[in-house]
Amino acid sequence: MINNDYYSQENQGPYEFFDIKDFELEYGGKIANCRIAYSTHGTLNEAKDNVILFPHMFSGTSKSLEAYVGEGQALDPSKYFIIFPNQIGNGISTSPHNTDDDSISMCDFPQISIGDDVRAQHALLTEQFGISEIQLVLGWSMGAQQTYEWAVRYPDMVKRAAPIGGTAKTSDHNTVMVEGFIGALRTAINFNEGRYSCCEDLNKGLCHLSVMFAAVGASREFYAKEHWRDAGFESVKQFLLDFWSAWFRPMDPNALVTMLDKWQHADVSKNTGGDLAAALGRITAVVHNMPFEQDMMFTEVECRDDSAMISNCEHKPIPSTWGHFAMFGVFPQDFAFIDNQLKELLAVSA
Amino acid sequence: MINNDYYSQENQGPYEFFDIKDFELEYGGKIANCRIAYSTHGTLNEAKDNVILFPHMFSGTSKSLEAYVGEGQALDPSKYFIIFPNQIGNGISTSPHNTDDDSISMCDFPQISIGDDVRAQHALLTEQFGISEIQLVLGWSMGAQQTYEWAVRYPDMVKRAAPIGGTAKTSDHNTVMVEGFIGALRTAINFNEGRYSCCEDLNKGLCHLSVMFAAVGASREFYAKEHWRDAGFESVKQFLLDFWSAWFRPMDPNALVTMLDKWQHADVSKNTGGDLAAALGRITAVVHNMPFEQDMMFTEVECRDDSAMISNCEHKPIPSTWGHFAMFGVFPQDFAFIDNQLKELLAVSA
Repeated sequence: MINNDYYSQENQGPYEFFDIKDFELEYGGKIANCRIAYSTHGTLNEAKDNVILFPHMFSGTSKSLEAYVGEGQALDPSKYFIIFPNQIGNGISTSPHNTDDDSISMCDFPQISIGDDVRAQHALLTEQFGISEIQLVLGWSMGAQQTYEWAVRYPDMVKRAAPIGGTAKTSDHNTVMVEGFIGALRTAINFNEGRYSCCEDLNKGLCHLSVMFAAVGASREFYAKEHWRDAGFESVKQFLLDFWSAWFRPMDPNALVTMLDKWQHADVSKNTGGDLAAALGRITAVVHNMPFEQDMMFTEVECRDDSAMISNCEHKPIPSTWGHFAMFGVFPQDFAFIDNQLKELLAVSA
Repeated sequence: MINNDYYSQENQGPYEFFDIKDFELEYGGKIANCRIAYSTHGTLNEAKDNVILFPHMFSGTSKSLEAYVGEGQALDPSKYFIIFPNQIGNGISTSPHNTDDDSISMCDFPQISIGDDVRAQHALLTEQFGISEIQLVLGWSMGAQQTYEWAVRYPDMVKRAAPIGGTAKTSDHNTVMVEGFIGALRTAINFNEGRYSCCEDLNKGLCHLSVMFAAVGASREFYAKEHWRDAGFESVKQFLLDFWSAWFRPMDPNALVTMLDKWQHADVSKNTGGDLAAALGRITAVVHNMPFEQDMMFTEVECRDDSAMISNCEHKPIPSTWGHFAMFGVFPQDFAFIDNQLKELLAVSA
């Protein structure tokens, strides 16, 4: 176990834990005590029909996108019971560096799938809260991957779905890009096959990863028009250090690799013997697919292919020079646009 | 000095050397004996007016694009005297691993600029061969950067110029991307601030760099349509190993970092006090600017901005799903398209 204060209640909480005994994994093996951390906002009503589920993106936690919750906003805690689950391996839920199960610690952590996360979240919702209906599942990036998995795997539960900047199956191009992200950590000085003794030793690798994200996380136009100025930075160098590097530097590399591997292998067609159209054909939810127009990670063109395979889907691209990271809502207009899109979707009868 | 057979006459030759004593560098300092390796094809005619200069791209050598030379092709050695110079720091010309000048060896190698390369090439052409007129300067990627530098710095010598998949000034976005490439080596296990004892120790970092190139060197569509099959590969994995990794694995990491740093700081406006329009306004050559339509490194949009600032320029994008690496001509149609474009340019009176 490595103590990393970044993942503490003080920094990422408040969160609670839901424990699953002998959680069987899709790729084989099991986690003897799988702890899913989660936070909630608002109150579950008596009918238990005011639920919104918001799984998080790569390198995120239950706290990352809390700003989307607020009175008068789409995710209004006075109306909805909003659940933010933490991914397995995200550093707070059961993860390589925080488990005392010797068989799965650190570099021996088992391979996890998006399906594992969604099954664990399903157990949380049904067993802990007795929920059988979700008004909206939404998520950005890896959150979109989980959103698709939810809509395909549990169509009877999911009434509305908003995959934001993500695809139902990781494309070959995206797979190669993620292989690069994984390589940034695995080939880094001191990674030592995951057997490092403290995260600070991986500082160089984490900074390298952050630069790689800077190159595809904001758009070419964002840099050309120096929109980092509008984001409050004085130079590209400061933007790299104070935005990207500051984001990744405190994190645990094994946790990041666990998530990247999940991202790389995300594929709802595992539910239908490899037939993606059949998988997306299972979706009964009203879907608003919300790619980012200038996204270089999950391109709008790729996302459009998913939209075409879903029966009740509107394709609603988000315009922003940020590209993939518009979801952070650094630009107020991006935040407002996305919030409005979510209001529209929640207003659709489903 | 590190012996690396990859750069030997057997593997990259035949090449010859042109020596420049006390070569002063733009960023300061000098190289006591700067050796520029080069190869030639065809014969310099008596009037010395049949010259084509073809500087190479990142990670390239004088041999990399030899396939463009051939009878009946645009670069016909029965008509033209074609010179392929090796960049300073490319592993064959004076480079971190091959110099016996202790003051500049290995990790103490001075910072080199595109301007240094072009001045050294100018010395080669004028002093070694007495050349005062070049029919065509062409180059791909970093070769395009050198092409622009030639056309801006020596407008009286350059009659035609074909920058292919490159810009006159590295954009901020491109700078961030290249910072990632540099990081792949600098943060790699065993890099040791450039003080490694053999290149094989950097195998992991070189493979990581190759995966990063795979993600932006071929287009999203190339992967989506599985065009790697048309390139003779049976899987994405095999494509990564046998194309990308095989390319970078034998190279010297310090040489690659030297070139990447040059790429990152390429900027013809250094000649005009930072005024890019003024720099490109100096060009008197007929320019055919040939970006790749699906290039993710030097986008066609960026290249179009350069075209607009050059008085006698045709903007002629190259269509290929390869994107940036269409120049390798793995697809015969890409090779034929580029060869035809070069024939067209050479037929223009200038």
